[in-house]
Amino acid sequence: MATETLTAERILAATEDVLRLYGPAKATVVDVARALGVSHGSVYRHFRTKAALREAVTKRWLDRTTAELSRIVADGSRSAEDRLALWNVALFTAKRKKAGADPQLFATYEVLLRENSGVVDEHITELVGQLVRIVQDGVDAGDFTPVEGDVEATARAVFDATIRFHDPVYAAEWSKPGIEAEMDALLALLVNGLKRRP
Amino acid sequence: MATETLTAERILAATEDVLRLYGPAKATVVDVARALGVSHGSVYRHFRTKAALREAVTKRWLDRTTAELSRIVADGSRSAEDRLALWNVALFTAKRKKAGADPQLFATYEVLLRENSGVVDEHITELVGQLVRIVQDGVDAGDFTPVEGDVEATARAVFDATIRFHDPVYAAEWSKPGIEAEMDALLALLVNGLKRRP
Repeated sequence: MATETLTAERILAATEDVLRLYGPAKATVVDVARALGVSHGSVYRHFRTKAALREAVTKRWLDRTTAELSRIVADGSRSAEDRLALWNVALFTAKRKKAGADPQLFATYEVLLRENSGVVDEHITELVGQLVRIVQDGVDAGDFTPVEGDVEATARAVFDATIRFHDPVYAAEWSKPGIEAEMDALLALLVNGLKRRP
Repeated sequence: MATETLTAERILAATEDVLRLYGPAKATVVDVARALGVSHGSVYRHFRTKAALREAVTKRWLDRTTAELSRIVADGSRSAEDRLALWNVALFTAKRKKAGADPQLFATYEVLLRENSGVVDEHITELVGQLVRIVQDGVDAGDFTPVEGDVEATARAVFDATIRFHDPVYAAEWSKPGIEAEMDALLALLVNGLKRRP
């Protein structure tokens, strides 16, 4: 292993494994170096601080969700209305899966959230950007009317309105019975609100 | 003071003052008793535990908001659409004022939230109940169509959609510039979603 080139990608993959094992409080750069069979100095040449490494691994993990969602955004075979609902359900499903199946990485994400990390802000900006594209497509197709004529503000309002289903502070509620029905009612209300009036 | 009858109401008023001064972590039942000029045993005769006292004082504080909002709900001179917007703005204003002007009581409320206290659940049930009345009035007047024909689910969806503007976990965002505009866009989207289609 140590003879392979030590890339940032290899370090991040190992960090993800180490975080899964030990969690954000206990995982150290030495653990990551040991998993890779290199010195911790070699890791620090790629990531200058433990915080930088933690941010990079969370960004990589969040980017996987954004990439998944971008396929829904780009699916021109579906109406904007359908994509809006599918996108929200996919985001909820991804977050819920992460909270359940990846609790240690999820905890890392929560640490970054509390630290007001730029990584989380960028993630949110990207998600709202995807919603802007869906809303704009709906407006272009004559299906949607943006609130106050402002597509950006409308996309942000949709994102804010569904915060209970994607903000990790509500993770404990995501396994409650009836949560899907509550989300469906909310999405139906939002889609109604977006639809152009005849 | 000590010669007046020691009522639950007097104890709660004193507890509110003591919590304002010392906060939920440091305030004790002895502080409350001292403020009233009575023994702590007299306080315990009305509230059996510190937790019970803390719950009762938070309930009283939350009930003041609910009472204020109930006047908007009952105002038959306004349309359901106007009342829905006014109610949400009033709730946001009350929560924001509490977070800013009453930080120690707000911290008590946050402690109860984390403890999943019944007091907070009751408060939320009451708020959703008020929204049910507004939505039902809108339906009766022929202005609103409930999502999936379900007024309760629709009211709950409106409450969920505006969670960023009333859940204390977002208190830090409530003083950000632009927050009112974000709320207005969201309310406009929700009212659009409720409006009956011609």
